[in-house]
Amino acid sequence: MTTVRHDTTIRVRYADTDKMGVVYNGNYLRYFEIGRTELLRHIGVPYAQLEAQGALLPVIEAHIEYLRPARYDDLLTVRTTYAVDRTPVLRLAYEIVVDSDVIARGSTRHTFVDHATFKPIRPPRLFLDAVERACSDTLQSVQQ
Amino acid sequence: MTTVRHDTTIRVRYADTDKMGVVYNGNYLRYFEIGRTELLRHIGVPYAQLEAQGALLPVIEAHIEYLRPARYDDLLTVRTTYAVDRTPVLRLAYEIVVDSDVIARGSTRHTFVDHATFKPIRPPRLFLDAVERACSDTLQSVQQ
Amino acid sequence: MTTVRHDTTIRVRYADTDKMGVVYNGNYLRYFEIGRTELLRHIGVPYAQLEAQGALLPVIEAHIEYLRPARYDDLLTVRTTYAVDRTPVLRLAYEIVVDSDVIARGSTRHTFVDHATFKPIRPPRLFLDAVERACSDTLQSVQQ
Amino acid sequence: MTTVRHDTTIRVRYADTDKMGVVYNGNYLRYFEIGRTELLRHIGVPYAQLEAQGALLPVIEAHIEYLRPARYDDLLTVRTTYAVDRTPVLRLAYEIVVDSDVIARGSTRHTFVDHATFKPIRPPRLFLDAVERACSDTLQSVQQ
Repeated sequence: MTTVRHDTTIRVRYADTDKMGVVYNGNYLRYFEIGRTELLRHIGVPYAQLEAQGALLPVIEAHIEYLRPARYDDLLTVRTTYAVDRTPVLRLAYEIVVDSDVIARGSTRHTFVDHATFKPIRPPRLFLDAVERACSDTLQSVQQ
Repeated sequence: MTTVRHDTTIRVRYADTDKMGVVYNGNYLRYFEIGRTELLRHIGVPYAQLEAQGALLPVIEAHIEYLRPARYDDLLTVRTTYAVDRTPVLRLAYEIVVDSDVIARGSTRHTFVDHATFKPIRPPRLFLDAVERACSDTLQSVQQ
Repeated sequence: MTTVRHDTTIRVRYADTDKMGVVYNGNYLRYFEIGRTELLRHIGVPYAQLEAQGALLPVIEAHIEYLRPARYDDLLTVRTTYAVDRTPVLRLAYEIVVDSDVIARGSTRHTFVDHATFKPIRPPRLFLDAVERACSDTLQSVQQ
Repeated sequence: MTTVRHDTTIRVRYADTDKMGVVYNGNYLRYFEIGRTELLRHIGVPYAQLEAQGALLPVIEAHIEYLRPARYDDLLTVRTTYAVDRTPVLRLAYEIVVDSDVIARGSTRHTFVDHATFKPIRPPRLFLDAVERACSDTLQSVQQ
């Protein structure tokens, strides 16, 4: 199984923190969204383009482990991994890294649905092609 | 000019606070939304019904004065006042009250727009009728 | 093992929705927070009191399954269950119910930590006593 | 009067949008926060450093005009201007720009307060020095 991987950096904002002085637990899902979105953009299929074609990609399951708190003004790296397995359910994994320490990790599951009916649909061609290109790029970089 | 007025209570949640230990400044606009929505429901025209008819009511201007911080678990009263003036622009005023002290106040301005085009439209009949009923109720209660 | 259970209702606000027209996935953790907080208040130990004694209760793990979307203006019931097991890790489970359908469910895990050091501490006496009272209330209501 | 100015770019995320398909009105205050924070970092006085010295800079007033909606995945430029006037109240102005159109503008007012008492304090030396350096840089670039 091939995996596609992408790193994005995010600055923690005041709006993200709570009175514990750390990032509010719900905001990690925003960070995961950013990681996922930038991975898609990186492989050439911006999520906005998928939506323009009528395909939504809602989260159907999410899991988060909070190992150490993220703090105000931290520069987080979100390391997003998509394990390509050609099933209707997409699985993404995330690590939040600060100064090379993993401070949180998690995963989300998604299925493509039609924007009008919210019924499951097959992944758009646009998406499958981008994933295929990304996989062959990964394989080539491994073989070199 | 007649005014329509409604009080709603809101509990401050951890998610609303920031690392200053108080409510994050942007979240007051959420409280104003709740005050405005409950005023509309109170006069018999839930905002969801307006949207179901294709009328959106976006905020075109907002102003907030933060007098004293709101704190975690505070039970806020949002006092919302709609000054009925039959112009296309709706003006709402808000006071946030804790233990009978006004800790913040503000205002928002809105115009009805079409949900598809975002172009200004006249206020829906549903809305005008509800406002008229609310005004005559207010006048009657004043006269008694 | 005894369980303590509490239901709270939450109105979905515009601020909670995203452009899919449904509640943003990260906001369910806010709903879980509200369920948990009201359960604690219900058994007589408001979370604010625990914090006043220097005990924080951060989330160390969270899991959410999104079965059907929650929509604007929905009146959600958050059904929170605390399975009392006298270990240092608290486990809470949640169901989000709309019109008697479970539309989402999830769980969170927590440990008490010191507010200054963020090091794990034993559950405060205040908390243990409240839980004990709640359990014996539950047992009595079962026996009757 | 000298002004200090700084541009920052922000990508609009799904979490920022609401069911109108545009950015939720309250989230503009988050964008203003980012603009303000990056202006401070740019002139050499990261806000986190001010807090480390015990100085908080809460918002005491905010004003926003929404001219055109910001949309999902838009790349916003937040243009932040600080009009240096050596009074205890800081005034910042903001423009949100998409493709060289100003789609929103606003302002915030702030005073430095002590982190423990929330009482007003004089601006920290660290801050005043950074502002002075920024002003003389601006003047020099104007004179050249």
